[in-house]
Amino acid sequence: MSDLPQRVRIHEEGPREGFQIASRPIETAQKIRFIEALAQTGVEQIDCVSYVNPKRVRGMADADDVARGIRKQPGVRYTGLWLNTRGLERALQLPLDLVGAVRVTASETFCQRNTGMGVDETFEEQRRWIRLYRQHDIEIKWAYVMTAFGCNFEGEVPVARVVQMVERLKQLEEQENIQFDGVYLCDTVGRGTPVSIERRIGTLRERWPGMRIGLHLHDTRGTGMANAYAALRLGVDQFDTTCGGLGGCPFAGHKGASGNICTEDLVYMCHEMGIPTGIDLRAMVECARMAEDIVGQPLPGKLMHTAF
Amino acid sequence: MSDLPQRVRIHEEGPREGFQIASRPIETAQKIRFIEALAQTGVEQIDCVSYVNPKRVRGMADADDVARGIRKQPGVRYTGLWLNTRGLERALQLPLDLVGAVRVTASETFCQRNTGMGVDETFEEQRRWIRLYRQHDIEIKWAYVMTAFGCNFEGEVPVARVVQMVERLKQLEEQENIQFDGVYLCDTVGRGTPVSIERRIGTLRERWPGMRIGLHLHDTRGTGMANAYAALRLGVDQFDTTCGGLGGCPFAGHKGASGNICTEDLVYMCHEMGIPTGIDLRAMVECARMAEDIVGQPLPGKLMHTAF
Repeated sequence: MSDLPQRVRIHEEGPREGFQIASRPIETAQKIRFIEALAQTGVEQIDCVSYVNPKRVRGMADADDVARGIRKQPGVRYTGLWLNTRGLERALQLPLDLVGAVRVTASETFCQRNTGMGVDETFEEQRRWIRLYRQHDIEIKWAYVMTAFGCNFEGEVPVARVVQMVERLKQLEEQENIQFDGVYLCDTVGRGTPVSIERRIGTLRERWPGMRIGLHLHDTRGTGMANAYAALRLGVDQFDTTCGGLGGCPFAGHKGASGNICTEDLVYMCHEMGIPTGIDLRAMVECARMAEDIVGQPLPGKLMHTAF
Repeated sequence: MSDLPQRVRIHEEGPREGFQIASRPIETAQKIRFIEALAQTGVEQIDCVSYVNPKRVRGMADADDVARGIRKQPGVRYTGLWLNTRGLERALQLPLDLVGAVRVTASETFCQRNTGMGVDETFEEQRRWIRLYRQHDIEIKWAYVMTAFGCNFEGEVPVARVVQMVERLKQLEEQENIQFDGVYLCDTVGRGTPVSIERRIGTLRERWPGMRIGLHLHDTRGTGMANAYAALRLGVDQFDTTCGGLGGCPFAGHKGASGNICTEDLVYMCHEMGIPTGIDLRAMVECARMAEDIVGQPLPGKLMHTAF
């Protein structure tokens, strides 16, 4: 157990993941109230909105109003997600924090289907993003490897492929003279298992011992928390999670979709293991209950449904 | 990873755990259909009914009819739970398999509240049960330590207390000239965490290296699968689980209650780790979907809600 991290850091993705798939309209004021409550829990980063086409994602049609409405707390980063330059242009006009990221995809097929580009092309595309961020003085923090555990088209993505992706990210860092906070492995479709976590983390650690590794996990097949535990054992100290497990759940009329691992359940497990997170667990549980009231359907989080 | 078990054995508790708390009446024929489908999955033991007061537990009022109605498959054990001699007398008249067990409780307060006896008294009570089993030629298989991780009255039960319970069970074995298959640690109220699993298993292994350890886990606080994974790493090869995660879930109008860990999710994790279970995963997922139809409300299982 000696590799357990000294502290775990969490990026709360609940508002963005949850509201973009909500099955009923949610008032802008409610979204803002939830984000403001999350900011009181001690979490350091909250992903609030995505700057996507309002016609395509109705749950995000009020993203600009949400962004403008939040009374920001010092010490909390309020982020939004853009996927194209139009999205970035919107973000530039709004008062949320601007955090740059580099995003690549390990599965060639998933990459083609999701972005219309091959993996090589997306690396070139990332160079253009890096330059754009530099122009706008936007700090680049993490690099993300999507489908790092596999996808529904190709099955498991080999570990060697993940290593290759990280290698290319390292080259990009050097060539573009930037420095990532670390590399996130994203289990985009929830195919990870404790063993596939261990193989990837172990291999990356051997090659790049000092590199921070983050995990974006989905609980699609029930292994989400076991995966997180396997990662904690190997010293992983950075996770994306969603309050209440927001973000697509079988109970939400999105059969087959499945949310991220649940913030407060992970925080509970960390605290029980003696790993601080800086998060007030009770306050986070209250946020999850608020989220359940707001979306109007049961969320998959467990701790929130106990007498805690 | 060298301690991973060669094979995992599962006791399926879904019918008993699920139907006794169902919020709407379920036809006897449906219960039988579900049990018969489970018997086709390769699972070796199915806990079908509990012989409790039909007036107290309405979902079990038809237990005798269920027991009589099952067309039994060879190679499968069909068990029922009795908690008093009246229950055993019923079981003796019915065609299910008779499996004896010794049950003690680690938490003094929980024991008092749940059985009306102190822990010492329950050990004496177990001697009477052992003799009763001997009279009726009923094989005693496992010993169970309830609340081995803690309870809602006393909080965490110390590891030393668990060791003491196992020590007394070992004495009982010797004095009564019986041999348990092993000792089950039951996380009766879902307080276990990977660390508390490791502490208990590690300590028991050191003291009784050859003893088989089983786990009865509840996913009350979201750590159920992480707990199972921690146990697998330490070679635990025996689990109680419920198909679909049946057995009290926040979505079932039993806010605060929470089911056992989910059979097919655990089987999936084991298979992905290369550990055979003898269970046909696809058939078990189909059973979980059948159970969801029968109970008429979403079950907490994850894999069952994917395109698997």
